[in-house]
Amino acid sequence: MEKKRDIVTMDHGGGGRAARDLIERCFLSRFDNPYLNRMDDSAVVTLGTDRLAITTDSYVVDPIFFPGGDIGSLAVHGTVNDLSVQGARPVFLSAAFILEEGFDLADLERVLDAMAESTRRAEVSIVAGDTKVVPRGRCDKVYINTTGVGLVEDGVHVSGSNAQINDRLILSGSAGDHGIAVLSQREGLRFDTELVSDSAPLNRLVGEILSGTPAVHAMRDPTRGGVAASLNEIANQSNVGIVIREAAIPVKEGVRSACEILGLDPLYVANEGKILVFVGPEDAPQVLETIRRNPLGREAQIIGEVVSTHPGQVVMKTMVGGTRIVDMPLGEQLPRIC
Amino acid sequence: MEKKRDIVTMDHGGGGRAARDLIERCFLSRFDNPYLNRMDDSAVVTLGTDRLAITTDSYVVDPIFFPGGDIGSLAVHGTVNDLSVQGARPVFLSAAFILEEGFDLADLERVLDAMAESTRRAEVSIVAGDTKVVPRGRCDKVYINTTGVGLVEDGVHVSGSNAQINDRLILSGSAGDHGIAVLSQREGLRFDTELVSDSAPLNRLVGEILSGTPAVHAMRDPTRGGVAASLNEIANQSNVGIVIREAAIPVKEGVRSACEILGLDPLYVANEGKILVFVGPEDAPQVLETIRRNPLGREAQIIGEVVSTHPGQVVMKTMVGGTRIVDMPLGEQLPRIC
Repeated sequence: MEKKRDIVTMDHGGGGRAARDLIERCFLSRFDNPYLNRMDDSAVVTLGTDRLAITTDSYVVDPIFFPGGDIGSLAVHGTVNDLSVQGARPVFLSAAFILEEGFDLADLERVLDAMAESTRRAEVSIVAGDTKVVPRGRCDKVYINTTGVGLVEDGVHVSGSNAQINDRLILSGSAGDHGIAVLSQREGLRFDTELVSDSAPLNRLVGEILSGTPAVHAMRDPTRGGVAASLNEIANQSNVGIVIREAAIPVKEGVRSACEILGLDPLYVANEGKILVFVGPEDAPQVLETIRRNPLGREAQIIGEVVSTHPGQVVMKTMVGGTRIVDMPLGEQLPRIC
Repeated sequence: MEKKRDIVTMDHGGGGRAARDLIERCFLSRFDNPYLNRMDDSAVVTLGTDRLAITTDSYVVDPIFFPGGDIGSLAVHGTVNDLSVQGARPVFLSAAFILEEGFDLADLERVLDAMAESTRRAEVSIVAGDTKVVPRGRCDKVYINTTGVGLVEDGVHVSGSNAQINDRLILSGSAGDHGIAVLSQREGLRFDTELVSDSAPLNRLVGEILSGTPAVHAMRDPTRGGVAASLNEIANQSNVGIVIREAAIPVKEGVRSACEILGLDPLYVANEGKILVFVGPEDAPQVLETIRRNPLGREAQIIGEVVSTHPGQVVMKTMVGGTRIVDMPLGEQLPRIC
């Protein structure tokens, strides 16, 4: 019998089953409403005469600076991307900082410079802010919350619960770059090739996809828990089966080597500039072409499809010709990755 | 010469000058836009065809449970109130949790129960959420960010920069209750009378004020830094002078005694269920009556007025017949009060 869990564990912060259990047990039961219950990356709500998307994320990544980014740019990109994958155009962000007493102001300014640059690149404005300071040892340098508001155009209905049988599944590029870059930096690991986070704002790419093909069914940016967690979420939300082909999933050579050494599966490692797109088979070639034309999607591949068998389950055809179930991760493979 | 400040200090988290300096130096210079630059409690933006108010706050109060509330209800009320004082009707909230490894899940559930109850009372919905877990000693039990979105009706233009000469200044009730309640709990102090936080959602009260008198000029809920900080902010934003009468400011007897013992001035102590209203002299009697009819405003008083002399400065006529300047506090009188 499993020991009763009565305290918060690191697993509760992962993108996996423990986190999902906590959310269902503690949060959904209390804040029951149709927007939250959808469990999408953003809530789509109607306010006044407009459809808005709203999303929130706190960033606690360690270390705060890593190859390819830092906590500031990540906080902008992550929230921009959560709005984008809901089919929304990100417009306004709030930014709230919890600072640890003694944190170097020069480092804070470096983080803020990166944030400002990211907001310019993503064409969003930070319109509301907050700063709190806690004593030494009650934070780790800086935590940032960004909450985003975007506008959803008429005719766009993208949701994790909207994947359809026969949909093709496109991944916009290589898997696992962000997680491995952060982990290597944190642990001081050195590999032959440089490992760089893919952290980037996806709103322009998503805009290009939707302007060509508004009938995209589902999108998700595979962050915590990686491609595996995102696919399991969508298989569950849409109550469909998903089949992916291992050979089709792009993984950078350096990431693959690092994963082998560290005993990690790139499918479960966080990305911060990649997108999964579910679209009907007739629209898939055009969407793939659109994605590949964008610099952030050059290595895009159709990695699988949606099937009517094994609803709720993700299955992978492996390179050696076998088949294995791609489970939801249990807990935290890589703590504080975002 | 002052020593160069190159690290974050507790003062940077207060409602005073050090916090303002940090915000101006580090934040406003980088995220320059007309919404943020107004430095109101919420940004009022136009999105699609609607005017929205957006506000964000992280809550790091210590202890997380205190007489009259807890971090969960505070996180709902604080954000609801920041929208309300901008003349907005709060509608949607996001809630993001940073949890410390080892935090008691029963305490988390107690906090969430209080949050849920507060959302029902304030008639707002939490539509987006996030949970992160950090290792022991990288947080203090739980920090909560709530970001709120509200709708601003046509004809409402409430702003801290809109106070007018001759405006009457109404305070909806006693000053300093929240800060003293939290401090007493934290320090284990015992006083003859029970000290209870005034934490409460003000949206219904503000709705009643605005439906009778849409032409309210400015409102603010005097949280960190208390009434003194809020008045200094508005005097600055509106470039007007403010005169208040000490004898008119309601302070509960227990709060007054506690402040005397602790060497605090109730005017600088945080409130979480009070509102300051600036309104023209012709409308003041009606607004005062409206506020007093609401259970949260029974002790409301006209505490002062806006003058053309000493712009940017707040002056108090003391009980003993003197006059003194009510300065912006420098830093953090009471750390982690919200």
